[in-house]
Amino acid sequence: MKRIQGGITAPTGFTAAGVACGIKGSAKDLAIIASEEPCFAAGVFTTNRVKAAPVQITRRRVRDVVIAHAVVVNSGNANCCTGEKGLRDARRMADLCGEVLGVPPEEVLVASTGPIGRFLPMEKVERGIRRAASMLRKRGGREAAEAILTTDTVTKQIAVTERIGGAEVRIGAMAKGAGMIEPNMATMLAFITTDAVIDRQAFSELLANAVNKSFNRVTVDGDRSTNDMVIALANGLCENKMILLGAGRELFQEALDFVCSELAKMIVRDGEGATKFIEVTVKGARSPRDADRAARAIANSALVKTALHGGSANWGRIMAALGYSGASIKPHLVDIYLRGVKVASGGEPVDYDASKLSKALKRKEIEVVADLNLGKFEQTVWTCDLSEEYVAVNV
Amino acid sequence: MKRIQGGITAPTGFTAAGVACGIKGSAKDLAIIASEEPCFAAGVFTTNRVKAAPVQITRRRVRDVVIAHAVVVNSGNANCCTGEKGLRDARRMADLCGEVLGVPPEEVLVASTGPIGRFLPMEKVERGIRRAASMLRKRGGREAAEAILTTDTVTKQIAVTERIGGAEVRIGAMAKGAGMIEPNMATMLAFITTDAVIDRQAFSELLANAVNKSFNRVTVDGDRSTNDMVIALANGLCENKMILLGAGRELFQEALDFVCSELAKMIVRDGEGATKFIEVTVKGARSPRDADRAARAIANSALVKTALHGGSANWGRIMAALGYSGASIKPHLVDIYLRGVKVASGGEPVDYDASKLSKALKRKEIEVVADLNLGKFEQTVWTCDLSEEYVAVNV
Repeated sequence: MKRIQGGITAPTGFTAAGVACGIKGSAKDLAIIASEEPCFAAGVFTTNRVKAAPVQITRRRVRDVVIAHAVVVNSGNANCCTGEKGLRDARRMADLCGEVLGVPPEEVLVASTGPIGRFLPMEKVERGIRRAASMLRKRGGREAAEAILTTDTVTKQIAVTERIGGAEVRIGAMAKGAGMIEPNMATMLAFITTDAVIDRQAFSELLANAVNKSFNRVTVDGDRSTNDMVIALANGLCENKMILLGAGRELFQEALDFVCSELAKMIVRDGEGATKFIEVTVKGARSPRDADRAARAIANSALVKTALHGGSANWGRIMAALGYSGASIKPHLVDIYLRGVKVASGGEPVDYDASKLSKALKRKEIEVVADLNLGKFEQTVWTCDLSEEYVAVNV
Repeated sequence: MKRIQGGITAPTGFTAAGVACGIKGSAKDLAIIASEEPCFAAGVFTTNRVKAAPVQITRRRVRDVVIAHAVVVNSGNANCCTGEKGLRDARRMADLCGEVLGVPPEEVLVASTGPIGRFLPMEKVERGIRRAASMLRKRGGREAAEAILTTDTVTKQIAVTERIGGAEVRIGAMAKGAGMIEPNMATMLAFITTDAVIDRQAFSELLANAVNKSFNRVTVDGDRSTNDMVIALANGLCENKMILLGAGRELFQEALDFVCSELAKMIVRDGEGATKFIEVTVKGARSPRDADRAARAIANSALVKTALHGGSANWGRIMAALGYSGASIKPHLVDIYLRGVKVASGGEPVDYDASKLSKALKRKEIEVVADLNLGKFEQTVWTCDLSEEYVAVNV
């Protein structure tokens, strides 16, 4: 697998555009991704019981229509908690995009992100869709990646290529995150394109696997926002041997995992107010569920995050988080490591080189490892530190 | 019921002292509460699987010894994650206190609060216990209340009197909180004294009830710190008719509820970096568990807390929290009120007087009400806003 330039328009047959339609003043706020051939669509959607209108429309279309030609996305307004009118607006966005592009209206997907509880300014949105549709181009990936941002400070794009089934298959992607210090409350949108020829069912399964190992590692179980979605489109233009089982499937999974993991990490690094990237690994857990709970409890602890923001080796806060995580633990067996330095052994203090550790904790990337020494399961989750800036951004 | 001056030494027969023994430099850090007669002891302890040494010792004594004569408490060190040595140190604190006071050593309880993972400086602690024991006095309640503080900015004391069973029964109490913006990660200590004659079993039950309606309203279920405890002592010096059942029991419960609720609110108001007291009520839930989950999800949302810190009526964040709370909800039935102003109706925006609301949200006390309109159950929880100051305190 090789990383290549670009994002969602890197695979053959995809174009994109991003325009400012006026929802966010003069900033780009509307994007279209289009494929010259119809695609298999796969998607993973928020588990929040409050689902934004575009989530409801797109989820139904991915399930029932399966084929998609394009995706239209706006930022600056979540179109959530907007009732029947919101559903009509979301459907109208997708349908209009289909009309303008000359494809069946139901073969267009729609996504939104921004504040909840406001109606979309549909006149502006409609004008934006017409403009964006007229500007679709191979080099439009970056504009599209800009148009979906909210409080993000940088665009998030990636593309890779891998030889599968006798051809160079490409995968491209873009995402937005940012309201992310507690990732459960952010809107996370990701769009993935590929020119691979792939079985429809396999495509859905591989996407779900990749999402579990990436975006869900920065999200508390079941605690997604009202608008989260990951959409993937495969247009089959690459002429590889169909991906179904065996080596091709494994290679495609690896490439998809890489793309999703890199985007997920970009989202954490650009978290609101984030100054550090924190990787939390819990080892030696009795079950996969225990490993997951324990790792998430540490990663979500405001006290752990503030301690690491300040570069402090306050491992007691990590022990406390393990204790209330619900995971099965024996405190006297727990070892804790910060950036490879053992700071607690058997749940008790150990001597360590404090100045060396203090220097290590000043770095931008911090690994926290807690070994429960009870079993063989482990889980890694990604988070960022909690800074004064987070509060300032969200006030 | 009448509120009276003082705290833990307000009931007949209790004395206290608070001294600086050197754990926290020159600040008071060691307190003793003593009763001239033996007391029935009742207690509620942290559910964290990592339990500090004093929690283990005191829990066992309350259960097995039942009778207590005194409580010794230190701040500045949690004596947690300190293994066998920590257990010996905690037992030594209690036993030494008993020796010095001339009471059976096992009839002394012990509590600690402060950073986790450090051994107690026992020489200082022992000297402090001897000094505090020699200074016990009726007016020592305030010094004791000072000596148990950590990052708290004010002492937390209360006392009430109520005519029960033919006598003026008194209840006094003190608490510390402070690391409290997410209350689950704070150490919360509370000590309650009474001169009531009360049945031992009834005393335990009434305490558990009161704690559920007060301290547990600011705590996420099962997410307590390693050191939390609420200890209550009844010395029976009041000569009231024994409290067991009927009106006396109800009156005592009400008084105990009031004492615990007031302390719990003091803890929230003095939360780290807190500038506002927020009362979250969820009504119309299908079950008590749903009401509780929904209210806690709102109260623990960093995005809701930062919005209210800035006085913003961002009710979409409240809807999102309801959606991931795990409670059964129908988004199109949800009504949301901020300080009595309806901001969302049937899960959609409604017109309201924005300038009036904006003024109301500048106040120090904010009530958030979400009516799920699905059933008859409700729950209220207390929290505070999330400010830049919280981060600064915890770095």
